[in-house]
Amino acid sequence: MSLRPTVDFLLYDWLGVQTLGERARFADHSRETFDAVLDTCERIAREKYAPFNRLVDTQEPHFDGERVILPQATKDAWDAYAASGMLSAAQDADIGGMQLPYTVEAAGNAFFAMASVSIGAGMLTVGNANLLMAHGTPLQREVFALNEFAGRFSGTMCLSEPQAGSSLSDVATRAVPDGEGAEADPLGPRYRLRGNKMWISAGEHELTENIIHLVLAKIPGPDGKLPPGVKGISLFIVPKKLVDTQGQLTGVRNDVALAGLNHKCGWRGTTNTLLNFGEGRFPVQGPGVGAGLDGQGAGAIGYLVGEAGQGLRYMFHMMNEARIGVGMAATMLGMAGYHASLDYARNRPQGRPLGAGGKDPIQPQVRIIEHADVKRMLLAQKAYCEGALAMELYCARLVDEQHTAEPLAADEARLLLEVLT
Amino acid sequence: MSLRPTVDFLLYDWLGVQTLGERARFADHSRETFDAVLDTCERIAREKYAPFNRLVDTQEPHFDGERVILPQATKDAWDAYAASGMLSAAQDADIGGMQLPYTVEAAGNAFFAMASVSIGAGMLTVGNANLLMAHGTPLQREVFALNEFAGRFSGTMCLSEPQAGSSLSDVATRAVPDGEGAEADPLGPRYRLRGNKMWISAGEHELTENIIHLVLAKIPGPDGKLPPGVKGISLFIVPKKLVDTQGQLTGVRNDVALAGLNHKCGWRGTTNTLLNFGEGRFPVQGPGVGAGLDGQGAGAIGYLVGEAGQGLRYMFHMMNEARIGVGMAATMLGMAGYHASLDYARNRPQGRPLGAGGKDPIQPQVRIIEHADVKRMLLAQKAYCEGALAMELYCARLVDEQHTAEPLAADEARLLLEVLT
Repeated sequence: MSLRPTVDFLLYDWLGVQTLGERARFADHSRETFDAVLDTCERIAREKYAPFNRLVDTQEPHFDGERVILPQATKDAWDAYAASGMLSAAQDADIGGMQLPYTVEAAGNAFFAMASVSIGAGMLTVGNANLLMAHGTPLQREVFALNEFAGRFSGTMCLSEPQAGSSLSDVATRAVPDGEGAEADPLGPRYRLRGNKMWISAGEHELTENIIHLVLAKIPGPDGKLPPGVKGISLFIVPKKLVDTQGQLTGVRNDVALAGLNHKCGWRGTTNTLLNFGEGRFPVQGPGVGAGLDGQGAGAIGYLVGEAGQGLRYMFHMMNEARIGVGMAATMLGMAGYHASLDYARNRPQGRPLGAGGKDPIQPQVRIIEHADVKRMLLAQKAYCEGALAMELYCARLVDEQHTAEPLAADEARLLLEVLT
Repeated sequence: MSLRPTVDFLLYDWLGVQTLGERARFADHSRETFDAVLDTCERIAREKYAPFNRLVDTQEPHFDGERVILPQATKDAWDAYAASGMLSAAQDADIGGMQLPYTVEAAGNAFFAMASVSIGAGMLTVGNANLLMAHGTPLQREVFALNEFAGRFSGTMCLSEPQAGSSLSDVATRAVPDGEGAEADPLGPRYRLRGNKMWISAGEHELTENIIHLVLAKIPGPDGKLPPGVKGISLFIVPKKLVDTQGQLTGVRNDVALAGLNHKCGWRGTTNTLLNFGEGRFPVQGPGVGAGLDGQGAGAIGYLVGEAGQGLRYMFHMMNEARIGVGMAATMLGMAGYHASLDYARNRPQGRPLGAGGKDPIQPQVRIIEHADVKRMLLAQKAYCEGALAMELYCARLVDEQHTAEPLAADEARLLLEVLT
């Protein structure tokens, strides 16, 4: 039992992704190159993810006071994923990307989600870097985004706070300019941030050389108060470890501290964190930075992305892809359940069919898949999971349409996506 | 927020259980005595169950090679439940019972299931003892059932085997007469059993002085083969520790060995076991028993209940009550979830209502129960849980009707129960 025939059917027989090779952006692609990507994803998922799904569930991340300890398997899985090139699947060839259609990228990622949803792949890192490619300065792209695509750094999205989950207009993280010359920092206008961010996936670990947090925060007005509403929200790049303009670590730890690990139901292998920004746990002082919030280096160094007050709009860039990615994780968890159910139903003998004279206890038991009601339940699972996968790949196809079709068709795809995601 | 007003409404305003006091069997009862029972259950559930629900979830039962270790809280909860008299709530007053209507017993047990479904109360012990009261000999009732009602012994129901879950016609546990004089054992015809029983709740623990297993097994025919089908199933009393005709432990351990603990999703505090009967781990030899299956004492000693071949029929005695009890556990788990949701929704501030001009970020956040869609979800929870509780208490009322109403009404109640359970 393999997922591949289902994926092939959806991609090639239904969505016709092989025809995307006719478009300029995908001119180097064909069914052969798509198949090669799917082969790679399927193989890595089989070798580096599936065998360790149970392990990461039982060996949850834990914090020893300095580091978050994860199983070696999680590191091996991350390294294999990064080495596959999937982190930059959608990027331009001239920065090392594959220029792959998003539909094929999404299909490839389905194999990882099915093998182990809680080891996870690179969705947040890719989303983070994509955002910087769209809204960052050339140097921010080079220093942060490109190192994320290469797997050297990983990324987070820091939106929620303990008192502000769905209500992002209430974020209370403050960002103030970091002293003289802050405006002219080559990495972007430099601020000091202070606040708490909750439910941050991959917020602390040793899988990569550095972690690039994208943080929503508010810049206080002249009265010292934070502007109310979502229009007061700005977006900052807050690296866990400070870097120079070459992207090299300076050796200075930024003032971002792990305050606790959250355990997510069904996602035990995931590192989900509460992060304290700027509480002074790791003071940042010396040349090139200001005195800090307390004059002694407190405050997380953050670089403004784009314009102040536009943070939420930037953060919701590529939200359709993010929604498809999250939906795909849920779908593939269900698909893994369907395949496990199917396997069990094909192997577990129990009971006998009703014949004309009732059940004949002399006969051997049958596999439970032969019972009509078990078959009905399996077909319901199959319909839900394969239907959901089809829906997600259809939406992914609309994303490609939006980006590469003729203007009229592109706009129609965009409108349909707004409804579907 | 308390469950009690809901239970009172269902019992007294809707089901009119106070009128049951007019019937001969319940003549000593009135709303006052029912209230006293409910008060006791509510108090014990609050003091001995609810505070330890999280504890029993994190400190799962474990086997140290000799004993199953449970938290002290589980022992305290069992002792308090046994001391309450609820184990013999339905029994005749002359054997120490309360002669309580089943409807009130079921309502009382709802408090325990809500406080901690996985600490559990005495459902299996009560079911086991009830079965012996209906189908056992006077001595079996006295030695086994009465000690279960008193909480000195606990009981199990051993039906499933690894290869026979729903298909009980395939049970492969064998029972053979235990040598000369086996037929004349005062505790019932004595057999030696051998086989494996799976998913046995409360199958091994130190909560009580002894554990009384009720075991489905087959007696081989003259050809040495087990009779096919459910008609070949017999029922045996297999005590963990052998007892004399006074119900005192003889000091001899029966040949029943724990082979493994199962961890039940959502019921971590429960001790669920795989038991090996008669494999020779605890040989039983000496005066009063036969030589055993291997001539050296292997084989679990079991006493036949009623007639051979009638085991499944006996086991399904009071199946309606068992179904109501299992349904009640699920319902009250849901009810606990509803109460937790309600409490959270009343205390968590998040977001603002939409006014004529949209949301006003200057206003403080509101409690999430004030959002219409959250209220809708809470009402759905309330409707499901309180509706299910009403259905179960209605069925329990039909059980009382079946047992104490005039013949015509009793038979109608029985028929309706067949449909509803």
